[in-house]
Amino acid sequence: MPKIVNHEERKENIAKATWRVIEKQGIEGATVRAIAKEANVSLGVVRYYFCTQDELLDYAMILVDQKVKQRIEEKMPLSLPLKKLAIEILLELIPTDSEKLLEMRVWHEFISRKIQKKLALDDGIQEVVYKILNHLYQEGLLKDSIHLEMEGIKLYALIDGLALHVMMKKLPLDLEKIRTILEHHFHTIWKEK
Amino acid sequence: MPKIVNHEERKENIAKATWRVIEKQGIEGATVRAIAKEANVSLGVVRYYFCTQDELLDYAMILVDQKVKQRIEEKMPLSLPLKKLAIEILLELIPTDSEKLLEMRVWHEFISRKIQKKLALDDGIQEVVYKILNHLYQEGLLKDSIHLEMEGIKLYALIDGLALHVMMKKLPLDLEKIRTILEHHFHTIWKEK
Repeated sequence: MPKIVNHEERKENIAKATWRVIEKQGIEGATVRAIAKEANVSLGVVRYYFCTQDELLDYAMILVDQKVKQRIEEKMPLSLPLKKLAIEILLELIPTDSEKLLEMRVWHEFISRKIQKKLALDDGIQEVVYKILNHLYQEGLLKDSIHLEMEGIKLYALIDGLALHVMMKKLPLDLEKIRTILEHHFHTIWKEK
Repeated sequence: MPKIVNHEERKENIAKATWRVIEKQGIEGATVRAIAKEANVSLGVVRYYFCTQDELLDYAMILVDQKVKQRIEEKMPLSLPLKKLAIEILLELIPTDSEKLLEMRVWHEFISRKIQKKLALDDGIQEVVYKILNHLYQEGLLKDSIHLEMEGIKLYALIDGLALHVMMKKLPLDLEKIRTILEHHFHTIWKEK
């Protein structure tokens, strides 16, 4: 009986091998050959799923995005008060464990490459941040006096700045620490009861 | 009569050519050959000043740091009120014109490379941010109720996040806009009179 191949799983395994190669050697080291070796498959298998290196790299970046979105969606049904839920979702945008750190490192490499090549950047993080802030405001949880646009710019910069500083080891890879920082930030804009 | 060569100026020109090559092609494209071509000098001249490629890249990174520090020092003697001076100095850490954008892009490439190689990162930005915040606090300009450590972490993340977003073109390369954002942030921590 022929072995049943789960194609999605195989593609994902190759993409995750790509992440590990990028982490170790940067995007310039992410050749199809190095990726096949890391994924422990033949060059032919990689080429079966991805016609070109660019196609593979694009898929590897999209997978980062998918993983983050998936984790956010898993948080949605939690019966948390809205204020807590907002912080839990934002925490998914900052590395707080080694798996997320790997994803974020890869994302950062892709961003650098896109800046260099002057390509459009739509990483979805800005959208998530703005949506959350707008929703909290609509629900009357934020101070009426805040400047919503400014708060959006600041929160988005805070999230990406914290993520960068964890990668730079200027901040620890510590969920509780990062949660405390976000809570501290929101204390300045929550409406007082 | 032999031509008088200003060695410091020549080294700086080679380093600046290195920045432009890195901007266009990333660090992996910054070969001694490409840099010599960009600087319009021979390979021999580059090798006269820098024995190895690493030595040249290190110097190019140090020069970014020096340029930022130099601009900050130029701000110091300005007879500005302390609150305004603090914001003017912090503005030097975010790209607000094309020259600073180039420096910041190069700095960002170096950071990525150092993260990848797990090298220590001392870019001096954290130090500047913490010093300014501490000084403002000592001078009694910040609310007594602030949590100084948290405010330091947040301000440092805000600065690097804003810088990243200008590079990503999520924010405009616009001094006034960035100043407004920083002023908005400080309004939440200035002591009320």
